Amino acid sequence: MTRQQLVEQIQIKQSYLCVGLDTDSTKIPKHLQTHPDAVFEFNKAIIDATKDLCVAYKINTAFYEAMGLKGWAAMEKTVKYIPKDCLTIADAKRGDIGNTSSQYAKAFFETLPFNAITVAPYMGEDSVKPFLQFENKWAIVLGLTSNPGSADFEQQKLVVENASQGDEYLYESVLKKVSAWGNTNNLMFVIGATKASDFIEIRKIIPDHFLLVPGVGFQGGSLEEVSKYGMNKDCGLLVNASRAIIFASEKEDFAIEAMAIAQQYQSEMKQYLTNSTF
Amino acid sequence: MTRQQLVEQIQIKQSYLCVGLDTDSTKIPKHLQTHPDAVFEFNKAIIDATKDLCVAYKINTAFYEAMGLKGWAAMEKTVKYIPKDCLTIADAKRGDIGNTSSQYAKAFFETLPFNAITVAPYMGEDSVKPFLQFENKWAIVLGLTSNPGSADFEQQKLVVENASQGDEYLYESVLKKVSAWGNTNNLMFVIGATKASDFIEIRKIIPDHFLLVPGVGFQGGSLEEVSKYGMNKDCGLLVNASRAIIFASEKEDFAIEAMAIAQQYQSEMKQYLTNSTF
Repeated sequence: MTRQQLVEQIQIKQSYLCVGLDTDSTKIPKHLQTHPDAVFEFNKAIIDATKDLCVAYKINTAFYEAMGLKGWAAMEKTVKYIPKDCLTIADAKRGDIGNTSSQYAKAFFETLPFNAITVAPYMGEDSVKPFLQFENKWAIVLGLTSNPGSADFEQQKLVVENASQGDEYLYESVLKKVSAWGNTNNLMFVIGATKASDFIEIRKIIPDHFLLVPGVGFQGGSLEEVSKYGMNKDCGLLVNASRAIIFASEKEDFAIEAMAIAQQYQSEMKQYLTNSTF
Repeated sequence: MTRQQLVEQIQIKQSYLCVGLDTDSTKIPKHLQTHPDAVFEFNKAIIDATKDLCVAYKINTAFYEAMGLKGWAAMEKTVKYIPKDCLTIADAKRGDIGNTSSQYAKAFFETLPFNAITVAPYMGEDSVKPFLQFENKWAIVLGLTSNPGSADFEQQKLVVENASQGDEYLYESVLKKVSAWGNTNNLMFVIGATKASDFIEIRKIIPDHFLLVPGVGFQGGSLEEVSKYGMNKDCGLLVNASRAIIFASEKEDFAIEAMAIAQQYQSEMKQYLTNSTF
């Protein structure tokens, strides 16, 4: 999926919602648990209920790997089921030496038909670049994450030579360096929503990139602040909610409740889009 | 596998070799390529040929994921086939928010029976700790890697408050902080072998931990230097070679040639163990 196609979908649906399919097999409704293909059936119902309200789905690979082979099969079926007008993201946080990252890119862009994958930057340029070699595919590199542990390294200050503008955080260095390895058509960044005030500084570094914002919902971020400070002329945001949507109800009405929550997000997003210059 | 059991195996086998099963399906010998279970058959032959010469096997998950479901099945068969006296490492470089890292730990420690997994530290404490909650299992956290990209972030200097001993590199901060989250019985570090001179400084920070050293062989590290500067009183090293062993020959004699190369490593290691205080 190209940037232009993504922006068009945001305009059509008046939404920049990403639904996170963190499908913990122990948390899906009881009436589905005995189904031989429970995880896929659950995902299918969630997708059917939310596909007109969101522009992206993010599959958190950990929950599928935890189920072994059966989980990998459910992931494959799910990504193939997602409508073509939605961006499909493998939230896999991969990253290794170049030779190995190429294999991960093959796994998620060729063997599986994802449009995008999240990538961990710690190992540097040759660990990121293999994900940027595929036409109309995206690497979404971790910048500032929303978890408490982001304080340990991401928010540590680096020594900067000739730092006329002061020190910079590790995550700022990541944004600066990584953005030079790709472009706004094949690279996005993960920016944690619990630090909405940081969006101003982040947008100075990467004004044009799309940002994948996790952490709205159960992780505590504010959609209003994220939208106010993070939006750019192409919207430039994908705001993710996972558990708040997919586990909105643990009963048979789970898909209806998921749709209701997704609808709330979309309504709020429509308002922010209307008020913006987008 | 406990630390004591690992140390015993090093003593018995007079080896600290880890064989990396980076089994690229396109590189296995032609006569095996038509086999319906080619990757497992290849791994099985490599394991049979090398199991008395090494103390660990490292499965690089990327190469299996690149093959999709069939690859995941081959990985499962392979890890179950590895003899119980060898440490099994999932070289998966996972790491995510706590809730998600717990799912990765489940995937590799419960659903699959690995003894250890490599973990990326960028997201901090809650991304690493879930891997330390399993008895006799290991998290092997990326410290300094051997690839060119390690210069981009790992080897950047951090601003240190009250730095009486000068600045520190990001990877040094990783070693200091992460080592406080676990202990020498559940935590190892990946240290790239191309920087053997750095081992002296690294051993000042983490004198007792085991280090997984990739990059000896095709990545250009020197086994002699790594052993000289990296070894501690429990040996404390696992030195990995992947392609140099498993793709030593592309003909029908691949397992015999793999054994010969592994034998060379083991002989050299035996010599360094004899010369050490271990």
